[in-house]
Amino acid sequence: MSEEKKNKQQDSTKGAATMDKIVSLAKRRGFVFQSSEIYGGLNGCWDYGPLGVELLNNIKQAWWQSMTFRDDVEGIDASILMHPKVWEASGHVENFTDPMVDCKQCKARYRIDLLFDMLTKKNKKYFEDKIKTVLGYEDASDKQESMNNYFSDNINLFIPEITCPNCGNTGTFTEARKFNLMFKTYIGAVESPDSIAYLRPETAQGIFVNYNNVKESTRQKLPFGIAQIGKAFRNEINTKNFLFRTREFEQMEMQYFVKPGTDDDLYNEWKEHRIGWWQSLGIKRENLNFAPHPADKLAHYAKAAVDIEFRFPFGFGEIEGIHNRSDFDLSQHTKFSGKKLDYFDEQTKERFTPFVIETSAGASRGFMAFLCNAYDEDTAPTSEGKSESRTVLHFHPKLAPVKCAVFPLVNKDGLQDLSRNITNDLQKTFKVFYDDSGAVGRRYRRQDECGTPFCATIDYDTLKDDTVTIRERDSMQQERIHKDKIKMYILEKINN
Amino acid sequence: MSEEKKNKQQDSTKGAATMDKIVSLAKRRGFVFQSSEIYGGLNGCWDYGPLGVELLNNIKQAWWQSMTFRDDVEGIDASILMHPKVWEASGHVENFTDPMVDCKQCKARYRIDLLFDMLTKKNKKYFEDKIKTVLGYEDASDKQESMNNYFSDNINLFIPEITCPNCGNTGTFTEARKFNLMFKTYIGAVESPDSIAYLRPETAQGIFVNYNNVKESTRQKLPFGIAQIGKAFRNEINTKNFLFRTREFEQMEMQYFVKPGTDDDLYNEWKEHRIGWWQSLGIKRENLNFAPHPADKLAHYAKAAVDIEFRFPFGFGEIEGIHNRSDFDLSQHTKFSGKKLDYFDEQTKERFTPFVIETSAGASRGFMAFLCNAYDEDTAPTSEGKSESRTVLHFHPKLAPVKCAVFPLVNKDGLQDLSRNITNDLQKTFKVFYDDSGAVGRRYRRQDECGTPFCATIDYDTLKDDTVTIRERDSMQQERIHKDKIKMYILEKINN
Repeated sequence: MSEEKKNKQQDSTKGAATMDKIVSLAKRRGFVFQSSEIYGGLNGCWDYGPLGVELLNNIKQAWWQSMTFRDDVEGIDASILMHPKVWEASGHVENFTDPMVDCKQCKARYRIDLLFDMLTKKNKKYFEDKIKTVLGYEDASDKQESMNNYFSDNINLFIPEITCPNCGNTGTFTEARKFNLMFKTYIGAVESPDSIAYLRPETAQGIFVNYNNVKESTRQKLPFGIAQIGKAFRNEINTKNFLFRTREFEQMEMQYFVKPGTDDDLYNEWKEHRIGWWQSLGIKRENLNFAPHPADKLAHYAKAAVDIEFRFPFGFGEIEGIHNRSDFDLSQHTKFSGKKLDYFDEQTKERFTPFVIETSAGASRGFMAFLCNAYDEDTAPTSEGKSESRTVLHFHPKLAPVKCAVFPLVNKDGLQDLSRNITNDLQKTFKVFYDDSGAVGRRYRRQDECGTPFCATIDYDTLKDDTVTIRERDSMQQERIHKDKIKMYILEKINN
Repeated sequence: MSEEKKNKQQDSTKGAATMDKIVSLAKRRGFVFQSSEIYGGLNGCWDYGPLGVELLNNIKQAWWQSMTFRDDVEGIDASILMHPKVWEASGHVENFTDPMVDCKQCKARYRIDLLFDMLTKKNKKYFEDKIKTVLGYEDASDKQESMNNYFSDNINLFIPEITCPNCGNTGTFTEARKFNLMFKTYIGAVESPDSIAYLRPETAQGIFVNYNNVKESTRQKLPFGIAQIGKAFRNEINTKNFLFRTREFEQMEMQYFVKPGTDDDLYNEWKEHRIGWWQSLGIKRENLNFAPHPADKLAHYAKAAVDIEFRFPFGFGEIEGIHNRSDFDLSQHTKFSGKKLDYFDEQTKERFTPFVIETSAGASRGFMAFLCNAYDEDTAPTSEGKSESRTVLHFHPKLAPVKCAVFPLVNKDGLQDLSRNITNDLQKTFKVFYDDSGAVGRRYRRQDECGTPFCATIDYDTLKDDTVTIRERDSMQQERIHKDKIKMYILEKINN
């Protein structure tokens, strides 16, 4: 399906959630704030607020349990700073680049595709005429992307004629150079080529370099996996779409080491397993999409690759990639480190380099997917028998930041103390919110907007028979249960 | 107590745990590996292996539950990259430095105290004679530290006479300069003073800059806290003692915002609360120590400060700091950002800048403390009625990486299938290890060394009455329980 078509479908099926609404709710309710906001923000970086950090932690924990609480997958947590040779072996020093030009006059630097956009805004006709004669378009205005590609590929032809958008001089740009997207720093007292270190642009390499250590300390046999959750950093020139393309983000990756020949089957198994995980936490299959990478567009390390996409308000976007990486990574690290990273099969007496099936999910993108997926506007009954509109986040109870809110019906006659005791007891197990302010209907609306799945109201009957009213967020149904059973009630829903 | 005295006491009370043994076990059993080990390692960085990541996660989760599952503390997760102005306001750009000299000839750079150590190794008598006449020592050999301090403070007097340890030239050093310990990088396409960003050297500032956002989105009233767990980075020149001083590490910090005047009492409350937390997870009070900072050695922001120290094999070392930071941080960020970071007290109609009580614990140091604390060598009975020595990690069940191991007594007659089913069921809740290889005594030894608190053995009686033998790690006592009760049995011990 084309991106455009998919976006149209999106508009009709889920009109309520727009990025503006999501970003606004995220800030108002404390899910996500701009990083260093009081200083004007730091582009491409975000901070998770009180509700956000709970949602993020719950996503990570659900992934971790699903991926590592099994015999054949081990977890690790490798450092963000790694030896620079790692990134030579992985190909990142050479290939993880964008093409850039500098203005020799004013030192401004531009990524070529963005420079093209700026130039065509200022002087559309010039570039259209020039390029369409080459490309042979009748109407070049539809062909912005092809024109941009032609411009990028042939930048040196244009340099003498380009005017720098910053200083206004013409013909002052350098030839195109590769700009590496890894953040670079120096370790130790001296800034020299020997002391360069990069912030990892992906967590996967921390797994490959620990292959021997994990295999030897755990005595795992093939096939087995190594899983990791952690931050990664990319010096993106073009950050966009809230948490979708950022400079600092978090990944949840697993590398499954397999015997060559079994890789195709295991690739398919993991593909199904992983899409099932997203569905198990409340995302409908129709809002997920498999986007296979065509054979001629596979990354240099990949034998096969597919993206799992989620239907964001701006269209389908990748939230996870499943890749058959062949033996590329272990072979490269063997070559660059001189250490054998292979496997000896005791049964067949064969020694070989395992293939790797990778499942690489975005924790930050997953966060945004679950937030968009949960967002809804509907109506709720008021105490006067009317109805009012509400904003509600339909999180799976396992992911909901706050599991339960506790309300004393009124702030007198001992209901507050009783509510506080119930809250304190539940707080040994969950994140629980105590709220004694305003009408109960108002309190429901606040919790709906936080995505809290259960609200327990303590009233005069509680004093008599120890029961409380539990109200469920999505159905808005209420039932009476014993106050000592609230914890088990919620635990069962969480693990459902 | 002096460091020396404390170390002697250590030697007599806990002879079994030495750093060598801890580091060796950590690698063998997959707790901690050297970062990028196949490339020779990256100094000051470590990777957590399969058991290590579970222990670390359990420590962080225990802290998070204890600190944020309460009404008055909110969690956040701020980005590692922050706006550079943050570090001007905090004082890090100016003050977070070590003094260094460069050799003008060969460009080698040295931290002054380390240069002194190198120089005195090569030419001890020269420096001793020269300095002891100034300091007036009879026997300067005991006074290495004072001599080093004198040398550092008066480096410029020595420069004409010092020979560079690297190139052998004399008098080629520059005057001393401050070397900042923050890792620096550049954001965006251009490396310029405007695009500098630092990797945060502490997580605290991410909390201060979010003070308004958290206060407004949660409607908290004073006193309230903001808690955060996350990585921080310091370009230490002198890394040491395994995880104790590293370049990449993890912190668990909480800033409690209070009304001025209530700060002394709350400082004392948090001090007691925090030492109680370490004790609640199995560290004895005699292995913990309060080390107050003397008034004349307080950091520039502190009104009062105390370290909680743990008795490591190398002596007492800080694992947490409790600080009364006064209104320093909020005032500085108000000044540098131009945004008011204050509080309006609805009851007294006063507006003021809150004071901050900080609890700053090391997750990485805590990891090492819990690992050292757990380490023990004792004897265990063998199946032949003899006894054998064992290495055991006495982790609190809440912290233990693997909660339970499941053993089929023999690999036949359906015991394996039954054991697998029990394992699969428990794995929905815990990290569980299945082991069907070798004598049961050997399997116990392996789990003891991993710190697994419970082992469940499935035998022929299980086929008859559904009971299994649960063996507890520390007491080595065994009891029979129904197989369906294993989960609740363990959950109760964890939450004890």
